[in-house]
Amino acid sequence: MPEYTPPLRDMQFVIHELFDAQSTFKGLPSYQEIDQETMNQIFEEAGKFASEIAFPLNQIGDHEGCTRADDGSVKTPTGFKEAYKQYIEGGWPSLSCDPQFGGQGLPQLVNSVLYEMLNSANQAWTMYPGLSHGAYECLHAHGTPEQKKMYLEKLVSGHWTGTMCLTEPHCGTDLGLLKTKAEPLADGNYSITGTKIFISSGEHDLAENIVHLVLARLPDSPKGSKGISLFAVPKFIVNADGSLGTRNPVTCGSLEHKMGIHGNATCVMNFDGAIGTLVGEPHKGLNAMFVMMNAARLGVGMQSLGLTEVAYQNSAAYAKERLQMRSLTGAKEPEKAADPIIVHPDVRRMLLTQRAYAEGGRAFTYWIALMIDTELNHPDESIRKETGEMVALLTPIIKAFLTDNAFTATNEGLQVFGGHGYIVEWGMEQYVRDARINMIYEGTNTIQSLDLLGRKVLGDMGKKLTKFGKIIETFIEEEGVRKEMQEFIDPLADIASKVEKLTKEIGMKAMMNHEEVGAAAVPYLRTVGHLIYAYLFARMAKIALANKSSDDPFYKAKLNTARFYFDKLLPETAMLIRQARAGSKSLMAMPAEFF
Amino acid sequence: MPEYTPPLRDMQFVIHELFDAQSTFKGLPSYQEIDQETMNQIFEEAGKFASEIAFPLNQIGDHEGCTRADDGSVKTPTGFKEAYKQYIEGGWPSLSCDPQFGGQGLPQLVNSVLYEMLNSANQAWTMYPGLSHGAYECLHAHGTPEQKKMYLEKLVSGHWTGTMCLTEPHCGTDLGLLKTKAEPLADGNYSITGTKIFISSGEHDLAENIVHLVLARLPDSPKGSKGISLFAVPKFIVNADGSLGTRNPVTCGSLEHKMGIHGNATCVMNFDGAIGTLVGEPHKGLNAMFVMMNAARLGVGMQSLGLTEVAYQNSAAYAKERLQMRSLTGAKEPEKAADPIIVHPDVRRMLLTQRAYAEGGRAFTYWIALMIDTELNHPDESIRKETGEMVALLTPIIKAFLTDNAFTATNEGLQVFGGHGYIVEWGMEQYVRDARINMIYEGTNTIQSLDLLGRKVLGDMGKKLTKFGKIIETFIEEEGVRKEMQEFIDPLADIASKVEKLTKEIGMKAMMNHEEVGAAAVPYLRTVGHLIYAYLFARMAKIALANKSSDDPFYKAKLNTARFYFDKLLPETAMLIRQARAGSKSLMAMPAEFF
Repeated sequence: MPEYTPPLRDMQFVIHELFDAQSTFKGLPSYQEIDQETMNQIFEEAGKFASEIAFPLNQIGDHEGCTRADDGSVKTPTGFKEAYKQYIEGGWPSLSCDPQFGGQGLPQLVNSVLYEMLNSANQAWTMYPGLSHGAYECLHAHGTPEQKKMYLEKLVSGHWTGTMCLTEPHCGTDLGLLKTKAEPLADGNYSITGTKIFISSGEHDLAENIVHLVLARLPDSPKGSKGISLFAVPKFIVNADGSLGTRNPVTCGSLEHKMGIHGNATCVMNFDGAIGTLVGEPHKGLNAMFVMMNAARLGVGMQSLGLTEVAYQNSAAYAKERLQMRSLTGAKEPEKAADPIIVHPDVRRMLLTQRAYAEGGRAFTYWIALMIDTELNHPDESIRKETGEMVALLTPIIKAFLTDNAFTATNEGLQVFGGHGYIVEWGMEQYVRDARINMIYEGTNTIQSLDLLGRKVLGDMGKKLTKFGKIIETFIEEEGVRKEMQEFIDPLADIASKVEKLTKEIGMKAMMNHEEVGAAAVPYLRTVGHLIYAYLFARMAKIALANKSSDDPFYKAKLNTARFYFDKLLPETAMLIRQARAGSKSLMAMPAEFF
Repeated sequence: MPEYTPPLRDMQFVIHELFDAQSTFKGLPSYQEIDQETMNQIFEEAGKFASEIAFPLNQIGDHEGCTRADDGSVKTPTGFKEAYKQYIEGGWPSLSCDPQFGGQGLPQLVNSVLYEMLNSANQAWTMYPGLSHGAYECLHAHGTPEQKKMYLEKLVSGHWTGTMCLTEPHCGTDLGLLKTKAEPLADGNYSITGTKIFISSGEHDLAENIVHLVLARLPDSPKGSKGISLFAVPKFIVNADGSLGTRNPVTCGSLEHKMGIHGNATCVMNFDGAIGTLVGEPHKGLNAMFVMMNAARLGVGMQSLGLTEVAYQNSAAYAKERLQMRSLTGAKEPEKAADPIIVHPDVRRMLLTQRAYAEGGRAFTYWIALMIDTELNHPDESIRKETGEMVALLTPIIKAFLTDNAFTATNEGLQVFGGHGYIVEWGMEQYVRDARINMIYEGTNTIQSLDLLGRKVLGDMGKKLTKFGKIIETFIEEEGVRKEMQEFIDPLADIASKVEKLTKEIGMKAMMNHEEVGAAAVPYLRTVGHLIYAYLFARMAKIALANKSSDDPFYKAKLNTARFYFDKLLPETAMLIRQARAGSKSLMAMPAEFF
């Protein structure tokens, strides 16, 4: 019953008007040829795939789930296999991959737009190609020439898929505890033995082969997280000529029954002496895996953006159709039995919350994607390094802020439907259930917050944050003199100075007591997230104001959404800052046995 | 896999120490005999039923759901019927019912304690007796002597159950639109025809008969909500001797597939000329139904309290067992592979959020239950009236504030479990799915907020609110002079004066523009909810301080939870007040077609 229309206009606004991506691409040798028209054509085609092929399978996937046969094989829901076939026939897996391995060499930004739409259409399905892309990036960065030759072309074309095997029953966050063993063999390969859980797309029927990237421990490894190595373990051993050989003993022991993302096979994977090859250096597996983790964290951000957008579209459509009660200021459509519920202020609050989080999230994720393109492609090393630092700073915010917001947004979407929102066939409750995992996997949002505050901000005494703050400061100085921008610049300057003060205060307290970091991290991350959205909405409002005499209602709507954001969502920081400043005392005082 | 232990100690604290219920009961003729020991014995027995009989069926009910056969009959999940049999054999349905009809004549407060535990154990199951109790209350208040004779004893004993049939496909909130028809028959009965949806416990196999309370429209009825009448429509016609006669044509057309509460049969009910009798006066059906709605709204509060408590218990147990990472201040259990996650400040934030919402919610709901006992039983009419007004003021807050908080709390509970929280067998995600409906049914939380701000507060120019405020003011004046209470009284006084100011401000704005009420209502309700919790936690802290030299760790824990509440949860009001004050402009500016 839900519908989905790719939001091409807003995507183009963000890419062409807000960030003028083409001018960035002009400075990046690999992307100099890319023009707006080419990008728009790709977006349009990607939108067709997402809305026409992937989207109709979303409720089917939720309803059917995956099934495992006694031999350990896994069947995906009806239509998933055919859609994946069309996906690889359309060349979509290769969009932003290295031409050396069959990729189309397009920017990460273009791939991000594709992923937003795929995730609006069908998050569970999108996780199959999504994790493959992460495996591609990891092997591309850390694989040996042999591994690249063996795996990359097939991952790029999508004929093979990839996974990420980290978690074990007794450890998720704390990977230092992991037990899976890797025994060196005489031929230079390794024999991998152990159990991994929560392996998304771990086994399925979409592709000929699956490349598992597995964290395991070598016999002589140091304890903890410094003794973990990374291995590539294929489902089928690959022969020297590239053909598939014997079945490797890596099998799906069972499928998890989950709250959502039913269409994705979440597997317990048993490695019983499975043959693998070392990726990167021994005991440096976590470093190699982090390439994939960072990509995955941005990927989770795109999932959440996608769900936010599709929930918004459906609840907005419902609110314009559903007749119930009269407007508080008198009947708006007196010829009808009641007014459409969009006349009610609180229904609009719920809709605009979703809309603002979709538009803010889009601006933020596309911005990062563009930074990644610069980080990976700029001819000047110092710019590559500097941009990489910005990406590192912002990645945990993308992950945690967008996933929290998407849970809020999908819940507001459900609420707009009233009782119907709770009924499966309307599709809104699936968005809530699917969105819920995003706050957990690829590092819980608490872990993201600790990464931001502890490592990225306090870890370098605020250097990266200060650099980022300069971007905002410059904008405030430039725009602060313009009267029509005052309604945006004043609160932006206010929250910027509060973040600066808060950071210093926590830094001081943390020197005395490390638990202050743990106590402040979650509200701190959300506060910085709002600083970023306030900055982005102010920039978007500036463009909207510049176009205020345009006939295009897009700019008026954008300006209104920005005003709503400053009025109703930014005030969350008033709570967050108080919570962060309240510190650790009332958290830590209670002895564990009192709980 | 989850566990549940009735929180008897905290229940007794609230009832005996915080509110000294017995002294209230001394002033109520019906309850003068009730002593603490009797109450405690009932709580203990009720806790056994909840934890030993209802609780083990919770995951089974979620997994199996209800099934409808072609003849329209509905089978409840395995064990539900047997548990219900034990429930009526134990006399639990009659606990707080009128002795004239076989009830035990115990206070509403005692029944509320029972319902907290039943809902912790199994919300879906509890809805069967829960709705019956509402039907009992409605017929007890508005039924004719014949209806009372025909139905009440069977509802009290639990041999028959009841439902509440309001919603139709095109109307939920806006009952004025309803179409179900009631045609008068020559014998004084009515023939009811129409379709009702979302009917909880509409059809099932637990009881011999089901009494549907149905809103329908008489032929000569005025338009809108002033033309709605209430009818009692039994599943089986009741013969003059009380035996069951022919099957009435009221049948379950289908069962809804829902996000949660799978164990409860949510039915589409078709009335095809079903025979019913009028309850109360013609065209005054909504008034009569409101007795039931108010009871149901408190009932939804109890559901949310129950879920909050059980989610807390399980995540606290998990956090004490699950080993992952080391404390930020160095290993706390160095002999183990890692520290239990309860050492981490943010895990404690999640646990204490649940705990504070459970303890605050318990104090609030039990307080209201005690007020209801006074409202219904006090010999002095003016006290009955005054207390009734307090109950009316607080009911929408109970409904919306507790259900929002329970959704937050159950989600925090899930999050503590990390990836395991997302897996069905651990049971945590069910609490989230079950809790989600509570924000919607019996009037969405937006409707509750409009009821509070528009009708209950501004509707009498703040008179009821001012009266309620006096209770808090008196406490502030009495305790404000004590230094050890300062940490609680200062923020309480602050939020009390802010609520007063905010109310006046919205009142002034509302006179100019009614949409200001709609724009402010939701954050306003939560702000008042926090005022109440701040007051209750301050009172609880006072008792804890008075017992600070006690060996009982209960008081230390209570004091700590109160401190946590003031530090970390009350600051939400800083956001809410800003949102409420921001008004309607950015909500209403955007034309509907821009959405």
